[in-house]
Amino acid sequence: MREISYRPIGVIHSPFNEPKGVPIQPSAAKGVRGTVEVFPEYASGLKDIEGFSHIILIYHFHLVEPGKLLVRPYMDDEEHGVFATRAPSRPNPIGISIVRLIGVDGNVLHIEDVDIVDGTPLLDIKPYVPKFDIRRVERTGWLEQNVHKLPEAKDDGRFVKG
Amino acid sequence: MREISYRPIGVIHSPFNEPKGVPIQPSAAKGVRGTVEVFPEYASGLKDIEGFSHIILIYHFHLVEPGKLLVRPYMDDEEHGVFATRAPSRPNPIGISIVRLIGVDGNVLHIEDVDIVDGTPLLDIKPYVPKFDIRRVERTGWLEQNVHKLPEAKDDGRFVKG
Repeated sequence: MREISYRPIGVIHSPFNEPKGVPIQPSAAKGVRGTVEVFPEYASGLKDIEGFSHIILIYHFHLVEPGKLLVRPYMDDEEHGVFATRAPSRPNPIGISIVRLIGVDGNVLHIEDVDIVDGTPLLDIKPYVPKFDIRRVERTGWLEQNVHKLPEAKDDGRFVKG
Repeated sequence: MREISYRPIGVIHSPFNEPKGVPIQPSAAKGVRGTVEVFPEYASGLKDIEGFSHIILIYHFHLVEPGKLLVRPYMDDEEHGVFATRAPSRPNPIGISIVRLIGVDGNVLHIEDVDIVDGTPLLDIKPYVPKFDIRRVERTGWLEQNVHKLPEAKDDGRFVKG
């Protein structure tokens, strides 16, 4: 099937210079600050974003090896299908992080709870809206017994481009 | 900046043959059933996904006109920056829907709460995990006064490719 091409609309900046050591979810990166630099030609798309306390960043995992279908995720020793994990190494290495928006300064967003490597290309920004994005969930599969490991789990570099 | 290329990993099927009339969020599409056909070469990536009650679909809005920076969204008469809206017409037309997973049949996922046009190319599937994906939100900007319109709001075709 045909390829789908996107262009980065900006770059994410964070204190993390490499994948190793990065918290593996925003909920494990409380208080970590960063910025989103939206390229000037897209800046007018930010109008009214300052009204939202949380935003969804969609980005490209530019440092990972894509394409694995079975992965051993950070929080389990067993292999799982990549689509049943949030591992960054996936056929299309698209990342999602819900971060706190603490301020807007022209084309720069100041954000908190950042679990993203510095220099990551940004594809899209969406406002996070409870009515759209919060579900009552009954089952979380293999993660149910493992999610308590989140605060200690860090990226150990296992999915980095070789 | 360089282009980023992805390949569809599957196709989403739904009762909606065109954008016009599609509910604009899964939370407004309760009980609407559909399927996700994952291409056979990616099927092993689904291992263990049946344990999750909800999944995140990431897909390409293949029928919309991309690129608008100011949009008049479905639930307001004012123009807002596209990144402060969930409008499908955006520089990179990437869609996200959190749907209920009701069953897995080989490479086919049976899903519910579907707000997606039939034939939409799928880019990624991630498990929905409350610990990762639920936030306590203080502010939802212009949507705060408008989100009550969600049950009646439908796609009226305004962003469709010309």
